[in-house]
Amino acid sequence: MTTPLPRFELAHLAHAELLTPDLEGSLWFFTELLGMRETARDRDSVYLRCYEDPYHHSLKLTAADQAGLGMLGWRTTSAEALERRAAALDTAGLGRGWTKGDLGVGRTFAFETPDGHAMELVWEVEKYTAPPELRSPILTRRSKRPLQGLPPRRLDHVNLMASDVTAHKEMFEQALGFGTRERVVDFTTDTEIGVWLSVNILGHEMAVMLDQTGTRGRLHHLAFWYGVPQHNTDAAELCREYGIRIEAGPDVHGITQGAFLYVFEPGGNRIELFGNSGILQFEPDHETVTWDLADFDTGLAIGGATLPAETYFVYGTPANPGQEKLLLPASAR
Amino acid sequence: MTTPLPRFELAHLAHAELLTPDLEGSLWFFTELLGMRETARDRDSVYLRCYEDPYHHSLKLTAADQAGLGMLGWRTTSAEALERRAAALDTAGLGRGWTKGDLGVGRTFAFETPDGHAMELVWEVEKYTAPPELRSPILTRRSKRPLQGLPPRRLDHVNLMASDVTAHKEMFEQALGFGTRERVVDFTTDTEIGVWLSVNILGHEMAVMLDQTGTRGRLHHLAFWYGVPQHNTDAAELCREYGIRIEAGPDVHGITQGAFLYVFEPGGNRIELFGNSGILQFEPDHETVTWDLADFDTGLAIGGATLPAETYFVYGTPANPGQEKLLLPASAR
Amino acid sequence: MTTPLPRFELAHLAHAELLTPDLEGSLWFFTELLGMRETARDRDSVYLRCYEDPYHHSLKLTAADQAGLGMLGWRTTSAEALERRAAALDTAGLGRGWTKGDLGVGRTFAFETPDGHAMELVWEVEKYTAPPELRSPILTRRSKRPLQGLPPRRLDHVNLMASDVTAHKEMFEQALGFGTRERVVDFTTDTEIGVWLSVNILGHEMAVMLDQTGTRGRLHHLAFWYGVPQHNTDAAELCREYGIRIEAGPDVHGITQGAFLYVFEPGGNRIELFGNSGILQFEPDHETVTWDLADFDTGLAIGGATLPAETYFVYGTPANPGQEKLLLPASAR
Amino acid sequence: MTTPLPRFELAHLAHAELLTPDLEGSLWFFTELLGMRETARDRDSVYLRCYEDPYHHSLKLTAADQAGLGMLGWRTTSAEALERRAAALDTAGLGRGWTKGDLGVGRTFAFETPDGHAMELVWEVEKYTAPPELRSPILTRRSKRPLQGLPPRRLDHVNLMASDVTAHKEMFEQALGFGTRERVVDFTTDTEIGVWLSVNILGHEMAVMLDQTGTRGRLHHLAFWYGVPQHNTDAAELCREYGIRIEAGPDVHGITQGAFLYVFEPGGNRIELFGNSGILQFEPDHETVTWDLADFDTGLAIGGATLPAETYFVYGTPANPGQEKLLLPASAR
Repeated sequence: MTTPLPRFELAHLAHAELLTPDLEGSLWFFTELLGMRETARDRDSVYLRCYEDPYHHSLKLTAADQAGLGMLGWRTTSAEALERRAAALDTAGLGRGWTKGDLGVGRTFAFETPDGHAMELVWEVEKYTAPPELRSPILTRRSKRPLQGLPPRRLDHVNLMASDVTAHKEMFEQALGFGTRERVVDFTTDTEIGVWLSVNILGHEMAVMLDQTGTRGRLHHLAFWYGVPQHNTDAAELCREYGIRIEAGPDVHGITQGAFLYVFEPGGNRIELFGNSGILQFEPDHETVTWDLADFDTGLAIGGATLPAETYFVYGTPANPGQEKLLLPASAR
Repeated sequence: MTTPLPRFELAHLAHAELLTPDLEGSLWFFTELLGMRETARDRDSVYLRCYEDPYHHSLKLTAADQAGLGMLGWRTTSAEALERRAAALDTAGLGRGWTKGDLGVGRTFAFETPDGHAMELVWEVEKYTAPPELRSPILTRRSKRPLQGLPPRRLDHVNLMASDVTAHKEMFEQALGFGTRERVVDFTTDTEIGVWLSVNILGHEMAVMLDQTGTRGRLHHLAFWYGVPQHNTDAAELCREYGIRIEAGPDVHGITQGAFLYVFEPGGNRIELFGNSGILQFEPDHETVTWDLADFDTGLAIGGATLPAETYFVYGTPANPGQEKLLLPASAR
Repeated sequence: MTTPLPRFELAHLAHAELLTPDLEGSLWFFTELLGMRETARDRDSVYLRCYEDPYHHSLKLTAADQAGLGMLGWRTTSAEALERRAAALDTAGLGRGWTKGDLGVGRTFAFETPDGHAMELVWEVEKYTAPPELRSPILTRRSKRPLQGLPPRRLDHVNLMASDVTAHKEMFEQALGFGTRERVVDFTTDTEIGVWLSVNILGHEMAVMLDQTGTRGRLHHLAFWYGVPQHNTDAAELCREYGIRIEAGPDVHGITQGAFLYVFEPGGNRIELFGNSGILQFEPDHETVTWDLADFDTGLAIGGATLPAETYFVYGTPANPGQEKLLLPASAR
Repeated sequence: MTTPLPRFELAHLAHAELLTPDLEGSLWFFTELLGMRETARDRDSVYLRCYEDPYHHSLKLTAADQAGLGMLGWRTTSAEALERRAAALDTAGLGRGWTKGDLGVGRTFAFETPDGHAMELVWEVEKYTAPPELRSPILTRRSKRPLQGLPPRRLDHVNLMASDVTAHKEMFEQALGFGTRERVVDFTTDTEIGVWLSVNILGHEMAVMLDQTGTRGRLHHLAFWYGVPQHNTDAAELCREYGIRIEAGPDVHGITQGAFLYVFEPGGNRIELFGNSGILQFEPDHETVTWDLADFDTGLAIGGATLPAETYFVYGTPANPGQEKLLLPASAR
């Protein structure tokens, strides 16, 4: 008899850490162009939040030798769920033990994906309360929309590259209760190339895509949410004018129906700006939708966008040796 | 010791029935102007769905002497949850027993709100499968976007008028596990004037507002989702050109941050077209946000819209005697 | 035999001066919230431009005892057209003689409307050239889109209040070659209540509306152009959050099909933010469209917006005695 | 001494004829998907108009062996301007004589471009008057927005391919008074690769681009105007779902700042859907903006779109031998 999969144990993606070899440049991007607000600094890290993020911070920028994903934090639906998921992760051999947390983050249980991406579960978090001058008359908004840059409203999702997509999918389903909403399969080899997972009705809060270079544990992108399609067009314009390289978009993926714009922040991490809420999956017994890699055009883009093969399917952070130059202008490569 | 509130027992609003004294007019509105597709007819009822609705139908239009809400259906998260909620409703004295369901709807458990609004819970539903010519290459889309009218994507939420808001709120929280996201309180009398409830991360799937006429059991509005703010502007234009009365909007409520457009379909029911996804509430321990009726402007509209006092706060369906003429042009009242 | 009306003599609205009793507050609004850039200061005046305005400035803010319109400048289509129009204005008795111009503005010919609004014609202007750090890679854009606030792209049009609409219309048609695109007539008295005029294919570059208080020479509003409907919604949100009073909108007028948002800048002048390009009138023999005041709803708004009678049709700047309090919150009037 | 260039002689692009080898397919595209309305049929031609087009028709679809541009009609600003331009064209050796016109089109003067594109000038046109059931309460709108498809509002512009761009530019400037707003130059050979021309404040009503295949007299695309950026995203979605091939977009060109979506109608002609009004050029002494072909990325797209080299720069209609298969799915070429 099989054990039923856990459900309703994780609530949402709560915070992410990005490593950057250009902290000043990354900060400029996130605060001046994207208008995120700094809430704390600690040694080599700066803590930032979007104006509707509920907690102390959603993004921690940390100076490092290489770009990449630091710690990624998921909030559970209860204190008890945290204990249960910690036990399940230990059973699966992926637990890395309890931590004391971080600024705004209480005790966490750390774990790793099969590829070694660092993650943690948390229940106790510090909710953000705006100082009077930043309080919004829109009461569900944790702070006023900034007048600086083109501010996204919240952290939305993460996209990981992995050496074995199925292994990651199964771990997230079985140990943590993620549902797999969509997947891409190469039926010539019966291999899963990508999966889109969620713990709630969002079309995805995490994706895992095959790292075609065979590298382990890299970040494909971190996404921030506008929720307004026009803002992706506005963001593309600002990126073009202020020297931020655009990889693809604005357009809408068939997969997740997400309105995307991919850019590279100055530290080299790929950032997605997300212009709608994508498909919302309300069905409690939703079956995974399968895309065939051989008939996949609409999955990549509903409009005419092309995702550049030389970067989109191979570049992640940390960049493989020599990949950094993919981000340079063609004339400088 | 208090019993913990149920959680994760209901999945979403699955279907709604509207009663209409002008079936032909209502059908024109929903199929010609809103581009919904008919999936079945049965005696005095026509079954309709939006192009991303997951099931056989989301709207059942039924000819009747008066406009109003017929049966409203909620889908549970499992077969077991259905049994548990049926028991809880029976305990609360609100259960009305099991039914054989309807076209596309299996066995349901019927119940009533304290005011007598008719509702049902269901687990077994018929998922919609498009015929080949309506199949979309966007695989999460259950059928192609229609070329007719300005089609909303799915049924979104319901808004009830009630004689006692708090009684309704407590029933939905305690028997069914709804969370109350926001509420409006008249602190001069400590009365709840309105509540916005959800069973998932949507800012609301149901609202209950005080019926200032003291009438029981009426419908304020049923809402359909575009998810694209521009489409509310487009819809207003079409309504203006094709003789559908606009009550208010397009604008955005501070409450729920929902992009609204209120119109009256030819049968007299108020319909909301919903142009964004509103605020999404991810926090598992989200505290209810309270608006003070005395300082409520931003709650009603972020922009300059006014919700007309002569209709918005008093008109519901079935209309009270004499209220129908509120929907006529001023010159004809 | 009638003299043919002049055509193609004026090119466009080039600059406007706003008087403000709260220069600091007005500056905050135009530079911090609307992101306009300062190009010069001179005694009590600050010169500002939008990022696509072609010349040295489009807006001159001048400290004054009362809000209102200062000098309004139209650019002619040639040096010869300037001379011809100056002569025509002198013949009409409205010329006020040549001036030495202003910062960025060469020699002008000053004139008055029948009500005494101050205007000038100019040919010689200083075209704006951005310093290197503000140069845009979009070559038709005179400077980068600012990262501050929600920046409109250019000055769009002016709306005057007048004691006699027809007298103003005839002067603008006959002396300057404006075409009257639309008008509103009160057929009970055969009076023109409003006219919308243009010297190019824009639906209007100037409107003149009857001042129902009988006052002469006031400003109804000055409009700045976004050209993107969503930006009016964004602007409403920022105004709501940052304490700028919204009068009406976002919605779309039937007249001109213009997407409007009306707000009051801190100095008390009404400002319109213009979210589309409205109807463009390409026909060289376009006939004036006439709206009947008795059947005028769609003219005011295509959606559900109401233009508040207590301000929209009576408030202008300078405000009449006692009118300033119309702009206060209801509780403070 | 040079003769001054004519100005203000042409008003706008009034009508265009498209040739199609698949009249039924092309009609489906323009009427079912784009919602244009048929106003007349005559032998092998169908006359169509957008809902804000001012005249009898803006598009004439004519069955033919090959796709391509038939007759293109420009309206002059007066009857006298028509005579003057006819004389100038005759002097330039491009006149082809007076015609009796067409349905809804009076006497015209026909001419050719240096490559032989067929064009005509017209003053007398039949203005469209809607039958009562199609009359819009928005009085500047010539007919109600259709409920069918995703209707553009009017014919916007034409883009020609030519064997010698400069020759075409000079003819349009000198004989007809077009202004050249922008151009792209290959400075390695001092060759103009593309020019964007206008007779009014639009950023362009006609473009001429170098036909890199050396072919003469072909059509690059004909454009229809939405004026609302979101509608280009909606149109891409419909094209994707209904089997219309998308070439590129939605995105925004740096040149003209036009929001583009390029698709191929079933007859093989490239159609642009135009989602904004682009840059409007108000300056009467506007200097041509020059883009360097070697630094041209932003000119092509502000976002991440790529214009496919295998079609965008070489495919036109009539297609060169073998080019038709460029429009087939990759698997079928």
